[in-house]
Amino acid sequence: LIEIDRPYLLFLGDAPDQLAAKTADGIARWRGEHCVGQFALPACAADLGLDSLSPREAAERGARTMVIGVASRGGAISPDWQEAILEALEAGLDIASGLHDRVARLPPIAKAARRLGRQIHDVRHPTEGFPVATGVRRPGRRVLTIGTDCSIGKMFTALAIDRELARRGVDTHFRATGQTGILIAGTGISIDAVVADFMAGAVESLCPAAAPDHWDVVEGQASLFHPSYAGVTLALLHGAQPDAMVLCHEPERPHQRGLPGRPLPYISDAIALHERCGRVTNPRAMVVGISLNTARLSERAAAEAIRKAEDTYGLPCGDPLRGGVGRIVSRMLELFP
Amino acid sequence: LIEIDRPYLLFLGDAPDQLAAKTADGIARWRGEHCVGQFALPACAADLGLDSLSPREAAERGARTMVIGVASRGGAISPDWQEAILEALEAGLDIASGLHDRVARLPPIAKAARRLGRQIHDVRHPTEGFPVATGVRRPGRRVLTIGTDCSIGKMFTALAIDRELARRGVDTHFRATGQTGILIAGTGISIDAVVADFMAGAVESLCPAAAPDHWDVVEGQASLFHPSYAGVTLALLHGAQPDAMVLCHEPERPHQRGLPGRPLPYISDAIALHERCGRVTNPRAMVVGISLNTARLSERAAAEAIRKAEDTYGLPCGDPLRGGVGRIVSRMLELFP
Repeated sequence: LIEIDRPYLLFLGDAPDQLAAKTADGIARWRGEHCVGQFALPACAADLGLDSLSPREAAERGARTMVIGVASRGGAISPDWQEAILEALEAGLDIASGLHDRVARLPPIAKAARRLGRQIHDVRHPTEGFPVATGVRRPGRRVLTIGTDCSIGKMFTALAIDRELARRGVDTHFRATGQTGILIAGTGISIDAVVADFMAGAVESLCPAAAPDHWDVVEGQASLFHPSYAGVTLALLHGAQPDAMVLCHEPERPHQRGLPGRPLPYISDAIALHERCGRVTNPRAMVVGISLNTARLSERAAAEAIRKAEDTYGLPCGDPLRGGVGRIVSRMLELFP
Repeated sequence: LIEIDRPYLLFLGDAPDQLAAKTADGIARWRGEHCVGQFALPACAADLGLDSLSPREAAERGARTMVIGVASRGGAISPDWQEAILEALEAGLDIASGLHDRVARLPPIAKAARRLGRQIHDVRHPTEGFPVATGVRRPGRRVLTIGTDCSIGKMFTALAIDRELARRGVDTHFRATGQTGILIAGTGISIDAVVADFMAGAVESLCPAAAPDHWDVVEGQASLFHPSYAGVTLALLHGAQPDAMVLCHEPERPHQRGLPGRPLPYISDAIALHERCGRVTNPRAMVVGISLNTARLSERAAAEAIRKAEDTYGLPCGDPLRGGVGRIVSRMLELFP
């Protein structure tokens, strides 16, 4: 497993707007206590409201790793970024990146890291081997976020559940399965980059046997209904063996991500299929709540959508960024005490 | 895509029994017309009944590739094998292998292949990149073999369907997704070795758009109900967009492969789940027949099992190695003319 040293300096690069820095934004939002500051290039238009620090200043405040918290244009790493990364290495920081292009493959950076004894974590690219899954039931409680589509709120929902459990004094771990989640958690496995045969086994390694009252909150990926990635979702479902599942959905999303003309599945179908498939490795697997992504709705329309979903499906609903997931967590702990 | 030159010389190594040479046996059984002979070491106890030829003699009869048709003990390639492989390269043959260990990684073999300009196809290890699947419907008919478990007859059933279609004058291609299938077909993609994100896209590449009356017969892998590999199966199902599915099952198999205590799913559940999931990319996807693996049953018990399954499920049944799949193919062509 990847282990990224903390605290972090968040690199915003030349982000043209706040959205381009959404990885950094997620880290600051969910693990602000692990961020000593932000480091932006002159052209940057994003701002997280953290102290602006050079790598040297960040290192003096205890930073251990500079995280690339910005999406690069077309996946390429510009010469300006390269210079900033070298500056961080010289200041004694490791580098962590969720970019598609591997930072460690840039010769000047690889060379400097070797010379300085620093680590580069390209978290999207697992370097280790994983075992084949056994499907054997293991102790410990697990909840998995699932969805009617990709990019619909599974990571945020998992982080919100983890935070709510911790607030209630429950022993809990957030288990990251995607690059942003890994940078937030400091550890995890980028499941969609694992070789097919070992996907479910990697998930079994990620959330291993635990004390009976410990909760692992596993970040979901993609959707059983998304034709590009559903195999990843099924491996995650089987490997995680969740007791509880929380279904993430965005009301009024016009079509599946990247696939115009392809509607999202009905919530009732999504619940039925996940419960059917989940029971292959956990006969008690069930959907315990619905997380609605209401970012595009007015306050009033959001409240209406949440009430309607509760009435229709008989499950607690909530938006993790608007009112929270407290009622979903209460139901989960009632069902799986 | 891999393209292996034919005809083949089948290397049986020091196979301690016939079962150890089952890859070679499958090639000789399904593509005997592409095999000029067999090449065995003195300790070999397997025999396919082909002419015994040295690599030099095989090359003189037109052979282009020596196929490693034997499982190695513990995955390692012995010094005796290495010598035989070098002899084949010297005789002007390429090498094709489905072993877990890559032949091309053995330094003396890699060096000889480079010097002689020969190719080494380690078919279990795709070397190319694949696109992300689009899920867009494409023309051409496709049938996929599916199963209640791993290693239950999906490759044999697909090959039997392909042969039966060809016998009836239908334009057909067998599409291989595993190492033995690839060695039989001379081309294909080892789907369980593809990186997770690209599984379904690799399958879309494997069986692309075709004429409306052309059939692709896609070799299935694993099972939606097998906790180790179900994600691979789902990606294959979504990527193949099959019109027809043929369910492979072995009556009285005591548990899922490698997983004592875990029973096979009911046939009715397997049909329902594959049709539900298949309809994500092909709204007409349906199971059209059941292929029973009756190898362990008496003639009489096999006939009984086939009749019982037909009565219970209302679908044509057959064993590809005992009576064949003719009635399944007839039903398939009726439903998808």
